[in-house]
Order: sequence, then C-alpha cells, then structure tokens
Amino acid sequence: MQFQYENSFEVKGKIIDKKVAILPIGAVEAHGPHLPLGTDNLLAERLSAKLAEQVNGFVLPTLPYGQVWSLKNFPGSINVSNESLISMLFDIGESLYRQGFQIFAMVNGHLGNAFAMKEAARKLYEIYPELIVLYLFYPGTSKVIAEVRETPASHGTYFHADEIETSYMLYLAPEFVAMEKALNDMPTIPMIADVTPTPWEEFTETAILSDATLARIDKGEKITKVALQNMVQIIEKMKEGR
Amino acid sequence: MQFQYENSFEVKGKIIDKKVAILPIGAVEAHGPHLPLGTDNLLAERLSAKLAEQVNGFVLPTLPYGQVWSLKNFPGSINVSNESLISMLFDIGESLYRQGFQIFAMVNGHLGNAFAMKEAARKLYEIYPELIVLYLFYPGTSKVIAEVRETPASHGTYFHADEIETSYMLYLAPEFVAMEKALNDMPTIPMIADVTPTPWEEFTETAILSDATLARIDKGEKITKVALQNMVQIIEKMKEGR
Amino acid sequence: MQFQYENSFEVKGKIIDKKVAILPIGAVEAHGPHLPLGTDNLLAERLSAKLAEQVNGFVLPTLPYGQVWSLKNFPGSINVSNESLISMLFDIGESLYRQGFQIFAMVNGHLGNAFAMKEAARKLYEIYPELIVLYLFYPGTSKVIAEVRETPASHGTYFHADEIETSYMLYLAPEFVAMEKALNDMPTIPMIADVTPTPWEEFTETAILSDATLARIDKGEKITKVALQNMVQIIEKMKEGR
Amino acid sequence: MQFQYENSFEVKGKIIDKKVAILPIGAVEAHGPHLPLGTDNLLAERLSAKLAEQVNGFVLPTLPYGQVWSLKNFPGSINVSNESLISMLFDIGESLYRQGFQIFAMVNGHLGNAFAMKEAARKLYEIYPELIVLYLFYPGTSKVIAEVRETPASHGTYFHADEIETSYMLYLAPEFVAMEKALNDMPTIPMIADVTPTPWEEFTETAILSDATLARIDKGEKITKVALQNMVQIIEKMKEGR
Amino acid sequence: MQFQYENSFEVKGKIIDKKVAILPIGAVEAHGPHLPLGTDNLLAERLSAKLAEQVNGFVLPTLPYGQVWSLKNFPGSINVSNESLISMLFDIGESLYRQGFQIFAMVNGHLGNAFAMKEAARKLYEIYPELIVLYLFYPGTSKVIAEVRETPASHGTYFHADEIETSYMLYLAPEFVAMEKALNDMPTIPMIADVTPTPWEEFTETAILSDATLARIDKGEKITKVALQNMVQIIEKMKEGR
Amino acid sequence: MQFQYENSFEVKGKIIDKKVAILPIGAVEAHGPHLPLGTDNLLAERLSAKLAEQVNGFVLPTLPYGQVWSLKNFPGSINVSNESLISMLFDIGESLYRQGFQIFAMVNGHLGNAFAMKEAARKLYEIYPELIVLYLFYPGTSKVIAEVRETPASHGTYFHADEIETSYMLYLAPEFVAMEKALNDMPTIPMIADVTPTPWEEFTETAILSDATLARIDKGEKITKVALQNMVQIIEKMKEGR
Repeated sequence: MQFQYENSFEVKGKIIDKKVAILPIGAVEAHGPHLPLGTDNLLAERLSAKLAEQVNGFVLPTLPYGQVWSLKNFPGSINVSNESLISMLFDIGESLYRQGFQIFAMVNGHLGNAFAMKEAARKLYEIYPELIVLYLFYPGTSKVIAEVRETPASHGTYFHADEIETSYMLYLAPEFVAMEKALNDMPTIPMIADVTPTPWEEFTETAILSDATLARIDKGEKITKVALQNMVQIIEKMKEGR
Repeated sequence: MQFQYENSFEVKGKIIDKKVAILPIGAVEAHGPHLPLGTDNLLAERLSAKLAEQVNGFVLPTLPYGQVWSLKNFPGSINVSNESLISMLFDIGESLYRQGFQIFAMVNGHLGNAFAMKEAARKLYEIYPELIVLYLFYPGTSKVIAEVRETPASHGTYFHADEIETSYMLYLAPEFVAMEKALNDMPTIPMIADVTPTPWEEFTETAILSDATLARIDKGEKITKVALQNMVQIIEKMKEGR
Repeated sequence: MQFQYENSFEVKGKIIDKKVAILPIGAVEAHGPHLPLGTDNLLAERLSAKLAEQVNGFVLPTLPYGQVWSLKNFPGSINVSNESLISMLFDIGESLYRQGFQIFAMVNGHLGNAFAMKEAARKLYEIYPELIVLYLFYPGTSKVIAEVRETPASHGTYFHADEIETSYMLYLAPEFVAMEKALNDMPTIPMIADVTPTPWEEFTETAILSDATLARIDKGEKITKVALQNMVQIIEKMKEGR
Repeated sequence: MQFQYENSFEVKGKIIDKKVAILPIGAVEAHGPHLPLGTDNLLAERLSAKLAEQVNGFVLPTLPYGQVWSLKNFPGSINVSNESLISMLFDIGESLYRQGFQIFAMVNGHLGNAFAMKEAARKLYEIYPELIVLYLFYPGTSKVIAEVRETPASHGTYFHADEIETSYMLYLAPEFVAMEKALNDMPTIPMIADVTPTPWEEFTETAILSDATLARIDKGEKITKVALQNMVQIIEKMKEGR
Repeated sequence: MQFQYENSFEVKGKIIDKKVAILPIGAVEAHGPHLPLGTDNLLAERLSAKLAEQVNGFVLPTLPYGQVWSLKNFPGSINVSNESLISMLFDIGESLYRQGFQIFAMVNGHLGNAFAMKEAARKLYEIYPELIVLYLFYPGTSKVIAEVRETPASHGTYFHADEIETSYMLYLAPEFVAMEKALNDMPTIPMIADVTPTPWEEFTETAILSDATLARIDKGEKITKVALQNMVQIIEKMKEGR
Repeated sequence: MQFQYENSFEVKGKIIDKKVAILPIGAVEAHGPHLPLGTDNLLAERLSAKLAEQVNGFVLPTLPYGQVWSLKNFPGSINVSNESLISMLFDIGESLYRQGFQIFAMVNGHLGNAFAMKEAARKLYEIYPELIVLYLFYPGTSKVIAEVRETPASHGTYFHADEIETSYMLYLAPEFVAMEKALNDMPTIPMIADVTPTPWEEFTETAILSDATLARIDKGEKITKVALQNMVQIIEKMKEGR
C-alpha cells in the first residue's frame, strides 16, 4: 500500500492493477500547545492510509511542506510559496501519469494548500486530460461538522487547532495529542481578515480558533468517516472513467 | 528531535538552543528488485536521525521527491524538476532562517538532488548570508568506500543499488532489504553517458550498478560512520560561526 | 471620481486627499442568453462607482479580463491565466503605492478572480506593507443572499447568471438585461466538480445555475446595498490605518 | 460591435461571420494639464470603434493599463511591466483563437506598449500560426503627420501630449480636452535619452513635447483618417488569408 | 583594451581608471552571399575597438548570439529569445557594477537586439541607478545615411546586408566581404510586415534589402565615423556623471 | 570551419555535410597574475578549433560568459546565472536543430558551466531527442592528469590556474601566458567548501590552486591530446546515430 516500499521489478503490474496514487499533503505549522507542528501531515497521512485500504490504492510519501502564509510568523511554522507547491505537484502528477496511474488523488490536511492543489490539477488537466487529478480536503463534511460542533465556528470557512481539528487528531493520531494542554481560545476574527492580507498574529496568540478542550474522539470519527466515505465514492466512480 | 512533533508554544526556545535544522532529502526511484523505491528517503531519514542525535539538532520531515531524470522511465520512479526542487528548498531555508535557525543542514540520500541543493544553498546565501546552509551527501567517504568495496566501481562518480548502497540499507534500514532478490549486474556504462543525456535504460535493465549480493552490514556501517563523523564535525564547527 | 479623467497637474493633491484607489475587475464570460458577456465587468464598474462616491475615492479603469477557466469553452468567454492576472495586479498596486495612494481596493465582479487577487495582495503586502490592499467580492452578503433567494442554491459557494446575479444586473445595469430571454435552468452539479477540474460544459449547457426568471430588481438592491455598506465600512476603517 | 455586450447564445455565429476581434490598448499616464490621464485609452477606444464599424468587427473591452516606464514618476501614471503585458495579451489572443476568431487586431494608443504587443504577437504566431495578430499604432501616418505639423517634432520617433496627440483628442474625444489649459512646452530632449534609461522628468516638467496650443480638430482628423484607412485596408486584406 | 586579456592582479586599478566597459553584441544571421553570417558580430567588435581606443575603455568579449526572429528560417541563422538575452545582459551588467565600472556601454551590431538591450538597461537602472548603461546602435546616423545612400531605402527603419551595411563591412572588416558575390535585390516589403509577425522569407530570398553592389568603403567610413563620434561624445559626457 | 565566416547561400549544404556544430564556452574569470581573465575562453576556442579540424565540424562563435559564482568577487570576474546560461544554450541548440545540425557539441573551458550545460542538454533532449547534445569538459583525462601532475591536487575534483591549467595554456595559447609571474600558491581548501557556499576568497588570495610554476607545455599537450582524442571518438561514434 505504501508505494515507496514497493520495488521496481514488481510495481509496474500493481500500478496497472491499483490505478490510484494517493498523495498526502500537509504542512509544518503552529497548532497551539496541544497539537504538534506536523498535525496536518499526520492527518493527511492517516486519512490516506484508510483511504488506500478502501480503494485498494497506493499511498505516496507525504509531501510535508505547505503554504502557511497566515501562520508563518508563529513559532515552528515553515512556509512554502504557492509557486513552489504548484510546480512540484505538477511534476509529481506528470510522473504518475507516465508511470501508468489513472487517478492522482491528493489528500490534503491543510486548507492553505487548496489553491495550489487546484491550480496544479488544472495545469495537469490541460496537458494530460486522461489523468484524473483529485484535490480532496475532507469533502462533503460541512453538514456533519455543523451537527457535531458544540462551539460556534469562529469563521465561516476555516477552523484550526480547535474542537474540530483536535477531534480529528484524537481519532486519527491520538498519540500526538496533549489534551491536558488544550485551550479554549475563541478569537474575534475581524471582517478585514477576509479582504486583506492578515497574518493571524493580528487576532490570535495561540493559533487556536475555538474551544479545543471540547475535542472528542467520536466527533473526529464521525466527520472523518463522512470524509472518507465521500472520498471512496468519488474514487470508485472515477475508476470507471470520466 | 523530530521537529514536526514539537508544539508551537515550546519550540521557539528549542530552536535557539539547538540551532540546527536537518532536512532529509531523498527520492522515489527504481533500486532493483531487492531495495524499495523509497531507498533514498529511508537512508536520508535514518542518517539524519543519527546526525541529529549527535549534534543535538532537529530533524525536519523528509522531502521525499527528488530529481531522478536518469531513471525516470523505470517502473516506480517519480521525477521532479530541478526548478521545483530549488524553489521548494529555497522556501524552506527562508522559513528556517526566519524561525531563528542558524544552520540548515540538508542530508541527501540521492545524488540527483545534488545540483538543486547546491543551487538553493547559493541562492539562500546571496540573500541570507548569516544562515549556514549545508548540502551533505556522505561527505568524505570516497576513501573508505574504495577500501570497503569488493567489486570494481562501474562508474567513477556514482553507484546505485549495488554493493555499496545495499550495504548502507543493511546497516540503516535492514527491514526493507530483500537480500534474497539481490542481483549481480555490472553494466558497462558507455563513455557517452557522461557527456550526453543518457537515460539509464540504455545500459541497464535492473538499475543495479554492480554486485549487490556482496552487500554486507559492516560495509554499510563503516562508510556510514565516516560520513556521520564528518557531518558531525562540520556542523559542530559551523555552530561556532562561519 | 474616474481617475483616468483627471489630469496629471491636479491629480497629486487629490490622491493625497482621497487616499483610495478602487479597481473594478471583471471578466468576459458566458452568462446565458439574457445577460451580456461583460456582466462581471458591468457589475464591478457600477458597484465601484457607488463605492467611490461613498468613500470619496477614485475609480480606476476596469480591468476587464479575468480567469474564467471553468467556462472558457463557452461561446464568447475570454480566459486569462492566474499568472497574468497576479502579475498585472501586482504592477498596478506597486504604481498606486508609488503614486501615494494609501488603499488599493479591488472590487471583483467574478469569483474566478478571487485567488489571483488574494495572491497579488499578499505579494504586495510582503514588499509594501504600508499599502492596504483589499480584495472585495460582495463582502458579508451570504446571509442576505440566503434570505432573498427563492430558488435553492445549486452550489454551496458560487452562483452564476441566475436569480441572484441577474438581480444584481437588474439593479445595477438594467439596460443590459434581456429578461425575456431569461431561463430557468437548475443543473445538478456533480460532487466531483469540487474535487477535480471540471469544465462547466460537463453539467450545464446554458451556464445558468438556477432560475434566472426569478430575478428582481429589489433582490439585487438588497444584496448590493449590504455589500456596499460593508465595503464602505471596511474602507473607512482602513483609512484610519491598519 | 461591442463584444462584451453580446450574449453567449448568439455570439458564436457572429464570431464566424465577423472574423475580427479588435482590442483597444492604452495606458493611464500623465498627459499635461489639458489632457486626461486616460488619453491613450480614449484614443484607442474611439479609433477601435471607427475601425470596427468599417471592417464589421467586434471591439473587445479596452485593456487600460500599459507600459509607461518613461513617465511613471509623473503624477497619475500607472505602469505595468512588459512581462505582465505580454503574458496577458498572449492569453487573450489564445482565447480568441479558440473562440474562432481569425484576426486579432490590437489597436494601440500608447507607444510604450509597442514592444509588448509585438512580442506577444510573435509568441502567438509560433503556436497558432493560423491566427493573424496585428499590432496597430496609427500605421502609415508619418508622412501626413509631417505635413500637418506646424511645430517641429521634439523627437524623431515619438510625440506626446503635444500638437499632434492633442489634435487626435480634439477629433476623437473632444469632451475630454481642456484647450484653455494647453501649453507650449518644447523640451530639449538630450541625445542620451535614446541610449540610456532616461525618465522624462529629466527633461520635461509638463510631459508635453511641443506646442499643444496649436492642436486643431482638422489636424487630428486628417491623420486619424489616414491611420484608419490603412488599418481597414490591412484587415480587409488579411480577411482573405495570409 | 581587451578586457579578457588582462589579469586579475592588475585589472582592479585599471577598472577604476578606465571606468568604461564596452560590450559588442551581434548575431549569427543570414546576410546574403557576400557577407558572412557573423557580420553583426564583426561590425560590433570592430566598432567597439575603435570606440575603446578613443574613450580609453575596456572591450569585453563579444556576445555573439542575438535575437534574429525575422531571419531565423534562413540558412545559418541562430536565434536566441529576448528573455535569454535580457537575462544574460542583466547579469553581465550586475557583475560590471560590482567590479567597479561606472559605464556599461553595449555596442550593438544587430537591430533585433535593440529591445532586449533597452529592457536589460532599464532593469539594471531600477536596481543599480548609479551604473550608467548605454545601448548604442550607430547613434545619430540617420542624416548621414540619407546623404550617403544611392538606392532608396526599402524600409523606413531598417536596412540589411545592403548598400549601407555592406559599406560598413568594407570599412570595418573588408577581409570578410566578397563584393563579387554582392547582389542588387530590392524587395517590396509589404506594409503588413510592420504590423504582424512576418518572417522575411515572405518577401525576400536573399535577405538583402537594396543594391549591395553599390557599397563603397567611403560610405561606410562616413557613417561609421559619425556613429563613433556620437558614441565618444556620449561616453565622455557620461564619465562626468549623470 | 568557423561557422560565422560562412555565408547563408552556401552554408546549408555544408551543415548537412558536416553535421556537427561545436560551441566553445568559457568565462571571464580571475586566473592569477600569469593567466588572462579570458583563459577559459581561449582554451575552449583553441580546443574547439582542433576538434573541428579532426571531425570536420563547424565551430560556432564562443559564448564567453559563464557561471563563476565561486570567484565572482575577484577582480575582473564576470558572473552569469545558471538560469541565463541554460536559457541561452537551449535557444542555441534549438536553432541548430532547426538548421539541420545533427550534433551540438559544447566544448567547455570552465567547470562552473558544467551544470548549466547538462541541464540545457536534458531540456533539449526532452523536446528534440533526435538532436545529439554533448557537454564536453576534457573528457576522460583524470588518469593522464594524475600521471602528469607533479604537485598534489589541492582538491579532488577541480583545479584552477595551476600547474595543470597553466600547462593547457602553454600548449594551446602560449602567447597569453606570463610564466614569469606564475606563483606557487597551494591553498588549504577547507572541507566545508564542498558542503556550503564558499566564495574562494575565503581560502585563496590568488585564485591559483597549486604550483603554477611547474606548468610545462608538454604536460598540457599530453592531457589535451587525450581529451581531444576522446572527443573525436565520441563525435565520430555519434555521427553514426544514437
């Protein structure tokens, strides 16, 4: 299942058979005191493993550096530009196509990567339209998130290191969560944060966007399972061709 | 020691204290029937861990995609361009500098990355001369390799998936070596391979460049220890400043 | 108010006085049979004029070419790349900064431009942090849109040439609307459209995403006024400095 | 005739029928006290309208930002780089080609755009040789200009905001001319201005390059008509194919 | 005088003393049967040598590859892109600045290089305004050319491999001229050649643009001396500073 | 043999006949007090001339600017970036391919150019696989160098302005060598020079890397002849096709 543990002599047939290459993409980024810098990498990796199992796909090695502009001034964050990300994702996709893969499924653990992934997918589509490129970020989970969440969302689109993301970690990578350090820190995100470049240090000291102490394993499980189900369904459908 | 398992609240002081960020860089590339595609990633990772221990540095998550032009047509290889690699390495280095690191040590497991690493290092040097950027690929081991090797080298500069590299794996990542599949396949590399673009399928079917069956754990240990010792020495010296 | 109708001898003082440059950005793109290709340009222009009046700003000439990847195969669409757009927006922002403007407010009439605008804003921020760059796309209107709309939204994030957008046009540029040609065409947008490059011809023949016949001038007015109010508020606040 | 006022349902057939897309390109640039910053946009627009009428072509929305390096330090000028301009013109041309246009006629109102237009045209030619790309800047008018002009030219190649350009405006956009503010300001342009980067503030305070008070509507009409006639002739000839 | 024949130990003081670096730029391009492909290189070189003598400057090694788009399909032409040329000229200028030169005088032998030279000069000016960058292409010779020429010009702006350019060669590099092969071939250059990409094979088979048999050494001498005088005057003036 | 002295009328057939274009590439770079800045250009040129004679090929004009990062701070060095070099070499190769050449042999006189040449060759190979691109830097001479050399090498890979390179010059371009100024200056190159950007001024004041006084014409002759023989053999083999 882990592509890089295969060997060159046997992998060719398996590629034809499996058809699907899954790339976990995350980031190294501040996630408060209770979650590790590599939270998004861990989530993407664990989710990819579950997905690969269900769709009989290969998991590629994690691309562990993402675009973290908003939090790049927080201790421990490592930021790469959209240009670098797009360029590398394009190259990887091109190689996968030449290797015979039919589906290149990028499983994202970090919202900041979304644009670069979409742009790389479009660039690949223009040149290799037969390759199906997926950019997956917990697809179809907004409803279940709304049901599960006890705290109000501090932002309409994103959440971070909070009740929800911490719950993901409790379910997918519990050994990396220090719940005793979890904080309740609900910032007031100013409206301007949506309309002008706004590093997050302007409105939060912790990088946590709600009450992380309310994180529970079953919340993470519920949402994650919906995401997983949707991803499986998308990929199975895509295997039959566009 | 693993940077991504740190949390944002505690990492700042540790960065100041440790000073050194170690980035393992490898590749996904054909390595014959007995070694996995991720051989260069595994070597870079394991070597980085040992290095970090000795110099009290942080290990960053592995950048697992490299420039594998020569072997890109072999099953399982994933190739990224020098441009992509340079750009991403530059971005990572820039972030590390801003985070307060003093030394950015790239530990390479794949020769094909060497140019991109050097070029990224120079670009960083032009803008952030205070940051010490190291590109390390088993430094200072040519003598010990010559002593250890039983087969003649098939090329003056590089070796691949052979007696030597397999020995590294036996020492650093033995659980990924299938010695029973190891082959003795000494290709005749034509002189033109050094002077014109020459995909390796033109002279080898296995991607092995000597007798891999002669690989031994102690050979790997001897060379690796020299490499490690040299890397430690370089970094300790660099900690005192340029 | 129209910047390009000013002359060079008198404009300098006015720039200092007004502080705000408003750039309408739209696109040339298929909008069904009842709306013109330039719908997004017209909306951006008219909205910018109203905004300029209220904040006493300058309106720059409209940048009438946008990123319309999704609809680029529809008759009449003209697509420019994100790279071109980012580059030109950056240049314009840089000139505005050097001319003495304090606020560069981009008023967007086309969702496809959103990424390029945000990216250009961030690039400007990195180099000219004193310049306030705004990317405005009907800010803070999701609630009022939900209230006003009679048809269900065909997509969670975007709408197009439908009840809502046609209402904007009825309010802002009625002379360009041919309501007698308006159609009710509610496509089923497949879930995959959010996760893989999906030109819209795969799910719609008209490019209309709901019942355009339900468009009403008062709907457009209500939403537009909320958007305008929010934009005014943001700019007035920004005039006092970051 | 205005492309952006067409709708997607009807435009396809018209494109096939008309064959010609005319893009006005201008700039926002200092033009003395008597002419607006948008002079070059107005000229390109009005000329394009006349041209479209005569050749039965479509006029695209004006691209109102140009390369104004020489005057970029004058109040009100907005400068975009050649790179941005080339990239956007290429994208527009590519879309026009895919939309079925046979001729892409760029009508320029600002000399500074000439290089970018030519370069974009060549890049399009290399990839889409069937698309005829024209870069038109008052073609074939040097003789009539010499006849009409009362003041000597202050430069062998260009003129600006002077007797000639002001005459164009009197003919094409008189409502934007404030003749009572027109100045006679004949600078001595040093020879070095042709051989080294020389911002115009080094030799003129007004940006006027001769006696603008001598501008007359009939002068503008005479030159403009020659330009127009030549453009019509070129396009009609091109309609018959290369 | 030839910079590359100096040695590193002695050159520093000479740079300070001489102040001026002269770069001959030419091209490899079809010039009919009587002139060599390297005509523009030879002219630039010989002219640079004369110039260096008069202004006591250094001559750098010739950059012998230029932008020859128009003639690139003729036998023997080697074309490089504007991008390549701009980039290399910028780098050379940057190095010269760092080496202590005050004036970087590019002496051009090929019109096609003119844009790249000007653009490189502007880019250098933006970053190193103290460095004076000159782009020199027979400056101030239009009058003397008109006086000297017996054949009418086939084009208002350029001439090529004709009476004039052959005369330059007779004066500057007579050993490379085969007058017995010179042809009289006056093409009719269509008006469209000025407004759309037009490879020269569309209107000439020889690449000669007038009667080359009328070339005379004294014609070349007269024009060249004017050019030289002007270049000397410009450089001497520039030595006193901007 | 000198391509640029050919004329366009006769060159086409000769290209088909000769098949081989040889491009000398060098640099302008500090080479101590006894060798000129253009040493690498002279070596590349003279070697190319000999090569052309033996393989009946064309010699192109020398590209005299190279990547001299390491020595760029020494008096007289002119450095161009890898990007500029790659771009120009690619363009030249593309033109040669279109002109009908079968082999593009780059003869390098400066180690710093090696990467750019290889990268350009690969880029050409991806697009024009039929064109054989060679990057030649004294191929196959390590053994004879070891035999000839009296001083130990100061570095395992490179040498510079020393016993060896000076010997090349004594054989190939003796009129440019000032042996009376030759120095014996054997620097201790620190190990870190191989692992971190290290401008050479950190370890040498002269840029000489061994005892230049030991240079002898016969040493240069021996090595050069081996290099030449190897180059001839490679090219003759390549003429028969890949």
